[in-house]
Amino acid sequence: MADHSTRAAYTVDSLLAVTVRVFNERGYDGTSMEDLSRAAGISKSSIYHHVRGKEELLRLAVGRALDALFAILDEPAAAAGRPVDRLEHVVRRTAEVLLAELPYVTLLLRVRGNTATELWALERRRDFDHRVAELVQAAVAAGELRADVEPRLATRLLFGTVNSLVEWYRPGQRGAEGLPDAVARFAFEGLRAR
Amino acid sequence: MADHSTRAAYTVDSLLAVTVRVFNERGYDGTSMEDLSRAAGISKSSIYHHVRGKEELLRLAVGRALDALFAILDEPAAAAGRPVDRLEHVVRRTAEVLLAELPYVTLLLRVRGNTATELWALERRRDFDHRVAELVQAAVAAGELRADVEPRLATRLLFGTVNSLVEWYRPGQRGAEGLPDAVARFAFEGLRAR
Repeated sequence: MADHSTRAAYTVDSLLAVTVRVFNERGYDGTSMEDLSRAAGISKSSIYHHVRGKEELLRLAVGRALDALFAILDEPAAAAGRPVDRLEHVVRRTAEVLLAELPYVTLLLRVRGNTATELWALERRRDFDHRVAELVQAAVAAGELRADVEPRLATRLLFGTVNSLVEWYRPGQRGAEGLPDAVARFAFEGLRAR
Repeated sequence: MADHSTRAAYTVDSLLAVTVRVFNERGYDGTSMEDLSRAAGISKSSIYHHVRGKEELLRLAVGRALDALFAILDEPAAAAGRPVDRLEHVVRRTAEVLLAELPYVTLLLRVRGNTATELWALERRRDFDHRVAELVQAAVAAGELRADVEPRLATRLLFGTVNSLVEWYRPGQRGAEGLPDAVARFAFEGLRAR
């Protein structure tokens, strides 16, 4: 009975939160259903009650990060206005989503491509990058971005800067609310005082 | 005799080049001396002829990256002048060293801290970051950097931007010679056209 009540207390969301933590610690390849069962404190059959297996958990976890990122592109400030302002909005919001969904985005950024789900995640990441690269191109065409940084490189540096937050940001860190703005200022205005 | 001549052809440098490639592919923890022997095409005893073991190979490999990075700080343009110009020189040169010593710097950036050598490498990386953070502080104090990006964050964003090159740069890629300048422009002037 105790086992049953524990199982009932688990939802896909809470199982996912544990799963993502374990995936990030051990790597997806290095994690077994046994590891997940132990970390969640529920039996493997209880996990199979919710999902078909490890790969479905991965799909749900990276899907959560991807959905949050793609939703940014449909926001009004990303969809209309000067390309450079739309781009800056996307960069700021990408940083916000990264901080809000840190373990999920961290997992997404570490996906390797060994399974169909990983290949799907990489493909959707490329789609997102491509959408942002189109915004960069539009901003360059409008003369809103400096001409001496190649558009493809600009896109990579933007993502490189935002994504580097996962390397050092820890949840609850002081000053987190100002980070997305600071990242956007860094990327668009640069560090040098004027 | 064939084995002897193969062994004789190996130097610590060429062994190191193979080692770093295997470490970056499999991870340091996931690499055995057997893996290194197979990749280098020489016997384990031939490897032990050069080094005491896997951890010494790691020390030599990350040491090469660290030496190249610390040497930047002693260059005249890093040691004298306006702090912001010294800082920009260090950022540009760090990108250059990263591209020139890509596999070695990649390995350094992936060090985890499970062995004494890894802890030593992390400690030296922190020292380097600290030296750069001091330059950032000096540039802020001189009013040369924008005041609305906190110095500690500025340091992290600078390294995040430069280090992100290891995620996508592939040796021999077209336009590599312009990358360090482009990275420095991005970080100090920002992407927005003026």
